[in-house]
Amino acid sequence: MTRVPAEAVKNTRSAMVDRGPFEVPGFVTGAAESGMRYSGRADLALICSVNPEGCAAAGVFTRNRFCAAPVELCRERLEAGKAKAILANAGIANACTGEEGKIRAAQMAELASEALGCPASSVLVCSTGVIGRQLDVRPVARCMPDLVGSLRVDGWQDAARAIMTTDTVEKMASVRIELEAGLKVTIGGIAKGSGMIAPDMATLLVFVCTDAAVAPEVLRHWTRVGAEESFNCITVDGDTSTNDSLIVLAGGVAGNTVIADIGSAQSQAFGSALGAVLRDLAIQIVMDAEGATRLIEIEISGAPDRESAKQIAFAIANSPLVKTAFFGADANWGRIVAAAGRAGVPLAPERVSLFFADLCVFQNGVPVPGEEVEQEASRIFSQKEIRLRLDLGAGKSSFTAWTCDLSFDYIKINVSYRT
Amino acid sequence: MTRVPAEAVKNTRSAMVDRGPFEVPGFVTGAAESGMRYSGRADLALICSVNPEGCAAAGVFTRNRFCAAPVELCRERLEAGKAKAILANAGIANACTGEEGKIRAAQMAELASEALGCPASSVLVCSTGVIGRQLDVRPVARCMPDLVGSLRVDGWQDAARAIMTTDTVEKMASVRIELEAGLKVTIGGIAKGSGMIAPDMATLLVFVCTDAAVAPEVLRHWTRVGAEESFNCITVDGDTSTNDSLIVLAGGVAGNTVIADIGSAQSQAFGSALGAVLRDLAIQIVMDAEGATRLIEIEISGAPDRESAKQIAFAIANSPLVKTAFFGADANWGRIVAAAGRAGVPLAPERVSLFFADLCVFQNGVPVPGEEVEQEASRIFSQKEIRLRLDLGAGKSSFTAWTCDLSFDYIKINVSYRT
Repeated sequence: MTRVPAEAVKNTRSAMVDRGPFEVPGFVTGAAESGMRYSGRADLALICSVNPEGCAAAGVFTRNRFCAAPVELCRERLEAGKAKAILANAGIANACTGEEGKIRAAQMAELASEALGCPASSVLVCSTGVIGRQLDVRPVARCMPDLVGSLRVDGWQDAARAIMTTDTVEKMASVRIELEAGLKVTIGGIAKGSGMIAPDMATLLVFVCTDAAVAPEVLRHWTRVGAEESFNCITVDGDTSTNDSLIVLAGGVAGNTVIADIGSAQSQAFGSALGAVLRDLAIQIVMDAEGATRLIEIEISGAPDRESAKQIAFAIANSPLVKTAFFGADANWGRIVAAAGRAGVPLAPERVSLFFADLCVFQNGVPVPGEEVEQEASRIFSQKEIRLRLDLGAGKSSFTAWTCDLSFDYIKINVSYRT
Repeated sequence: MTRVPAEAVKNTRSAMVDRGPFEVPGFVTGAAESGMRYSGRADLALICSVNPEGCAAAGVFTRNRFCAAPVELCRERLEAGKAKAILANAGIANACTGEEGKIRAAQMAELASEALGCPASSVLVCSTGVIGRQLDVRPVARCMPDLVGSLRVDGWQDAARAIMTTDTVEKMASVRIELEAGLKVTIGGIAKGSGMIAPDMATLLVFVCTDAAVAPEVLRHWTRVGAEESFNCITVDGDTSTNDSLIVLAGGVAGNTVIADIGSAQSQAFGSALGAVLRDLAIQIVMDAEGATRLIEIEISGAPDRESAKQIAFAIANSPLVKTAFFGADANWGRIVAAAGRAGVPLAPERVSLFFADLCVFQNGVPVPGEEVEQEASRIFSQKEIRLRLDLGAGKSSFTAWTCDLSFDYIKINVSYRT
């Protein structure tokens, strides 16, 4: 059960995306319990291409200046556009751990490479958890046989659970599309992340695999585009983490002609399907955000350009006053307008209008009067999924951000995460 | 009783500033109850120069694009550098109220000008409270005789109380300095503000008066400098409001030679004393911030320039994760470092160090090990006033910001402010 109930959230769902169990031909996954920080649950996940040579790989990572050791490792290794496996752990982030942290991230990769019989350079490593503690690799070494032994085609749910930290539910999404006549491919992914979520990625780990054959440079392109339109459109608390990683692997066993031309119809279809999976995972993360009770969609329309719209959307989405009003089901449009006004973007107040769902509450710079407006606004705010649109009346660009409310539970969860 | 107890906060106090009752020769103040939104308390404050011609005046206002009607009125009228009186109300912000709001702000000024027998153009108006509701001027008109009748030299505390909204305590600060041999002047001010506090000013109203004779352009200069080093260094929730106003009046009855040269010794002494009053009021506001239990001082040192230092200081000061850790007395330095890393400022992690008071917990990019470090850090975090310093090892510039923690009470207060 995610924090915002899935059945209460309909508008933001794409019909093509499935959140249930899936398999991606050409990949096996597994999970095991190292006990490095948690007990009684798996904390290691392994995702592995069955191709001995590995497969096409691309990634997008945090822009935080204190990026974690495994992030540096992945960035380096992905330059080649290929990988064989991803080893991920939950509990210890291996961030702010200096040179020793880099050595340990490399050791993790070596342990997996020995067990899998592949070069260490083809293993990617991802970590999530507490910042600033050294990761003990001995428990990883001890349970590596279990982990490799657990690899199977339907291991995705176990892997999704193994990477959770403050998440309450695992996040999975998959689509199947017909890439060529009679030839279907799967794109399936898992994600974790619950707090420290903001543009530039966050405490996110996202792993997506496909059996489609895609050239590394095309994969890289769609991974970047997809991240920009999904994980870079969400915020829980404005904090971006040291470890955010999105990795996409394309195994190629589907037998399609390798997608090597970004502009081709197959490429566009693939990009759009990958985008749908990423966006669905991003929304699942907001729905399960720390303390979230509502999912909020914030659309800025009528903007002079996308960047201005984005800046205003995030000023609203990150405002503690706005988010607290959402938690209280208080249709306090004044806070929304005030947050827009401080976003640092030129605005003509007399051209700005605000809508809750399709209800106009603020038109051309002044409130729409009437008791029934207030009542309808209250009804909209009592729902679990709230859409608002601020029209700037200043152009044709738009941007949509997703966020959640700020509740007592957010504070309860974060007061003592380390203990 | 302010939210963070005054006696627990010592480091940030300036010895020259007094928080007790004060009088400023040449000014009378008063308060009255209009009942426009609150009942059983005063909600109107009037500050008036005894000089029939008025006095030198300067102001700094919100940069929010949806600035309130009274802010526009003050901005316009202060261009002349003179004013006779300030009329302020609490409860209704008169923001997002369109043309009608401007008419009503002007009507408030007229009511005061009629009662005081001065031109309406010499009356400034300030409002604070709920955004988007029209202000009813009839209750203001009704109680104007009471308000003018209440004017007296020791009315500052009443005025400070009348402008409160979610504040728990009135904020007053004054200094007396010897401007010329044997000639002392007073600078005394009141402030309100508790949420929606951030750089570019916030839901702040700050009124400061002095008996010193200061030329309008010099007064304008020190008002701007003082605001930059006080109210623009604090944040409660990153939100800036539509109504933030700082107004300084210089009545000139002290009999000093008019300070007309910004560079003179008298000017510097005046500027520094005004700065001390503004800074003390700013810190009082953070101490009484919505839900605050601790006052946090964040110094960024070793920065290449002040702007970079400021950007990092506010990234930390506005991070909900950092602020929640402060509430939990959790010395979670990882969140502080991670917030610094996402501030958008170039950083060399291996040169960055973090201190809690004088305790180094993170040195040149890696944590300082040891159980005793952790214990001492916990001791520091259990206090009501916490100082932290992040040294970037990249230059000689610095910036200090003040903030508070994020507690359950912040949410409780903001869930349903309108009802």
